[in-house]
Amino acid sequence: MVNTHTRLHNQLQFIVEIDKLKHVLRHTILMDKSRRENDAEYSWHLAMMAIVLSEYAAQAVDLVRVLKMVLIHDLVEIDAGDTFCYDEQGAETQADREHQAADRIFGLLPSDQTRDLRSLWEEFEAKHTADAQFAAALDRIQPVLHNYYTQGGTWKKAGVTVDKVRKRIAPIAQGSPILAQFIDELIQDAVEKGYLRTETLPKVAL
Amino acid sequence: MVNTHTRLHNQLQFIVEIDKLKHVLRHTILMDKSRRENDAEYSWHLAMMAIVLSEYAAQAVDLVRVLKMVLIHDLVEIDAGDTFCYDEQGAETQADREHQAADRIFGLLPSDQTRDLRSLWEEFEAKHTADAQFAAALDRIQPVLHNYYTQGGTWKKAGVTVDKVRKRIAPIAQGSPILAQFIDELIQDAVEKGYLRTETLPKVAL
Repeated sequence: MVNTHTRLHNQLQFIVEIDKLKHVLRHTILMDKSRRENDAEYSWHLAMMAIVLSEYAAQAVDLVRVLKMVLIHDLVEIDAGDTFCYDEQGAETQADREHQAADRIFGLLPSDQTRDLRSLWEEFEAKHTADAQFAAALDRIQPVLHNYYTQGGTWKKAGVTVDKVRKRIAPIAQGSPILAQFIDELIQDAVEKGYLRTETLPKVAL
Repeated sequence: MVNTHTRLHNQLQFIVEIDKLKHVLRHTILMDKSRRENDAEYSWHLAMMAIVLSEYAAQAVDLVRVLKMVLIHDLVEIDAGDTFCYDEQGAETQADREHQAADRIFGLLPSDQTRDLRSLWEEFEAKHTADAQFAAALDRIQPVLHNYYTQGGTWKKAGVTVDKVRKRIAPIAQGSPILAQFIDELIQDAVEKGYLRTETLPKVAL
């Protein structure tokens, strides 16, 4: 490394390190079904959704905070890996693995930036603020779009049923009632088109 | 498509369409040298750099505008393809191809958003404002980091010489003199390490 002051050196070490996010594969399949999506692509897509859809947030949001949240939210997966959202066993250890990862990865930055980004990541995880709730809604919406437009995608692959999907997307309503309603219609349409199974559960019980 | 009003329908068509950015390959090689980077990953990486490095902008920048610029700046490549920065022939037709692509892709959005994003993209391309100059600096810095940390990357592959690289990175100084100085040292180090050729040009003439 060439000579430069410590602050910039640490920031660049972080920028080089996070290149690894491009190798963390999600279960989601790209719209053309050619391959699985990675976390960097996904984070970019969520940021684009934040730009285009922020008018539908339940409460007015601070776009720069939402953008930061969606751009950084998966960095912990560089160490902790992607936990498939319908993997109940993986979910048990997920929080511990991700907190350790946050210590290391955000810790590469100068301490003021470590604090800022770590705190935004924790806010995103806690989902108590309007910004975090809207960011979390986008995080639940994007995979539904991908599964719908790939005629079932990971829903079919993992044999997921509509009741599990409905539980998974429930937090969307808190971040954006309008988008929640739209996604609900999309899910209904997916069931009718055979992209998503109802299994043995009668529809009235959902 | 399920029933929903036209505005949201158009916004979602855009969001689905831009999934294609994940297939536009750049010449840059990922830090672990395993494969080429794509435009979606690259746009995410630039956004992360904007978040971490904005303190070094030549003038105070509006972070949300810089983030939007770097997130959307490559969307035109969905139609126009990536033009390698050292491809002089491709550069001749690049502007025309990219303007047509901008018409189609931003045109998928509701008209107010078409205007907003198209105008930000044009601002980025023109590089006359502080926000655009800082965004452009990041766009020139990231490939240098990748080429340096892959011991030459596309510099070696394309046989690029240090004078061409110095010309290519010249605009960094306008967006951030501090980062320009750092990149200059990195380039010098790359030459000394043999990652980058000086060819027949004597060093004093550079």
